[in-house]
Amino acid sequence: MNQESLFLLFDLVGTFAFAMSGAFKAIRKNLDLLGILILGFATAMGGGIIRDALLHRTPVSFTTNLYALFSLLGCLAAAAWHYVAKGRRLLDEDRAFLLLDALGLAVFAVIGASAGAAAGLKPWSVVVLAALTGAGGGAVRDLLVLEIPMVLHADFYASAALLGGLSFVLLSGAGIQPSFVSAAAFLTTLLLRIAAIFLGWSLPKLR
Amino acid sequence: MNQESLFLLFDLVGTFAFAMSGAFKAIRKNLDLLGILILGFATAMGGGIIRDALLHRTPVSFTTNLYALFSLLGCLAAAAWHYVAKGRRLLDEDRAFLLLDALGLAVFAVIGASAGAAAGLKPWSVVVLAALTGAGGGAVRDLLVLEIPMVLHADFYASAALLGGLSFVLLSGAGIQPSFVSAAAFLTTLLLRIAAIFLGWSLPKLR
Amino acid sequence: MNQESLFLLFDLVGTFAFAMSGAFKAIRKNLDLLGILILGFATAMGGGIIRDALLHRTPVSFTTNLYALFSLLGCLAAAAWHYVAKGRRLLDEDRAFLLLDALGLAVFAVIGASAGAAAGLKPWSVVVLAALTGAGGGAVRDLLVLEIPMVLHADFYASAALLGGLSFVLLSGAGIQPSFVSAAAFLTTLLLRIAAIFLGWSLPKLR
Repeated sequence: MNQESLFLLFDLVGTFAFAMSGAFKAIRKNLDLLGILILGFATAMGGGIIRDALLHRTPVSFTTNLYALFSLLGCLAAAAWHYVAKGRRLLDEDRAFLLLDALGLAVFAVIGASAGAAAGLKPWSVVVLAALTGAGGGAVRDLLVLEIPMVLHADFYASAALLGGLSFVLLSGAGIQPSFVSAAAFLTTLLLRIAAIFLGWSLPKLR
Repeated sequence: MNQESLFLLFDLVGTFAFAMSGAFKAIRKNLDLLGILILGFATAMGGGIIRDALLHRTPVSFTTNLYALFSLLGCLAAAAWHYVAKGRRLLDEDRAFLLLDALGLAVFAVIGASAGAAAGLKPWSVVVLAALTGAGGGAVRDLLVLEIPMVLHADFYASAALLGGLSFVLLSGAGIQPSFVSAAAFLTTLLLRIAAIFLGWSLPKLR
Repeated sequence: MNQESLFLLFDLVGTFAFAMSGAFKAIRKNLDLLGILILGFATAMGGGIIRDALLHRTPVSFTTNLYALFSLLGCLAAAAWHYVAKGRRLLDEDRAFLLLDALGLAVFAVIGASAGAAAGLKPWSVVVLAALTGAGGGAVRDLLVLEIPMVLHADFYASAALLGGLSFVLLSGAGIQPSFVSAAAFLTTLLLRIAAIFLGWSLPKLR
């Protein structure tokens, strides 16, 4: 399995996990069936759609069926879990689930950074685009049900994508080979996010 | 009167009704004069603007004066009604008003589906664009005054536009003539929405 | 100092002041360090990013480093002030600070109107784009922390930018020389906003 197909696999795993996290939130907020689908799809595709709107490209998720399919599967899986577990256990706070989500965050960050670099953006905005692609969907999910986006006040999530984007920019700037740059940015994001999950990292606040 | 001018008429009627619904909400939320105009215009134009941003086109409503004029008239009509009825009767919960709104939903859905098909999107995203064009303005209206968008938890509204979009995609795929496809998608959306109004339809929730 | 470099200076002062206002709000809402940066940058760049998305241009703030630098400085200044004043005095309600902010509003309004006119939009949407560029960042700031955007219900802020945009459109239409049109639209917005600050203007509501 080469790097490209591995990244596509992670991309779809991430889409699936993001859609699940959106659908879970929709179920808990007592939204209807359409609301569950909208929140699932918006979480899975929101980051990429915002990125593509900023880069004035037609959303990638609208020009292929693959992301829609895995978003739908994520929504169905969340509904199935809801019936099985009946709220006794919140899967999206489970570490196993968070690892799937972390795969998505890492691969989305790399895709965002690559798109920004290809569009000729400045280094700092390549970094922003990595974080926006990775964490934008979750922010849309939170805002749609009137919660202050998690990335603004808790956890170490978008920060992992930012640092992944930073490593992308630094290694690209150093003239490293693209496939290695992507792999390094992916691993930076993934490992930082995994560390955050297991060590309970969060950013300081001003007091 | 040919189909094209009939659709333009419905488009303007819908713009007017959407603007009224935005202005009514603004008045009830005690926004100021500018807030009433913003909410009216955002409700009338929001769905189309989001659609055009996703398709990287300049918003149609910004390149002609017609939509602005009918949005303004909708805001004025809402203010006039507010003074006449003094809150004794909420026009935007009146069935006569909801029928005007349904005309808007149906024609906006067809316009959204056509734009998506013309941009070469996949069938599922043509359907999404129909619903987004029809129901996006109302979602923007709700979010601006911090309400969870109605389409996420109640009524049968975006669903009518989704099914209208679906009929558009299916009939287009079957090689039916474009003007008939548009008419069928329009009627599908309109009749489903009217049924929803009179029969009190809403989508189920997971429990 | 010619007009162009004067406008760039005001543009950067405005970026700085807008970022400060976003960072202050983030600190008060107890967001974390990333949340402070996001709110600061979103307030400073949000209006321009929305404008550029509507005009399907890559955001100006993403293709130069200058705006990012002054946004960062604004966030740092807000944090420094927070430590110095310890909440005893709210700088962003101080008239001196509001004057800096007014400079930003005025120059952003002119930039937005110019961009709309260059894109061939209709006069009314050139006016809208002036207000959106000037006041959009503040609306994004408020929505991200779940407050109804200030521009919808209080103060005389976006209205100053609207009237500045209107003067831009009227003077352009009268065939006046571009640099004079920009100066006049800038001064219209600035003086109206300053009057609003000192005279406590706000728009009426329907009652």
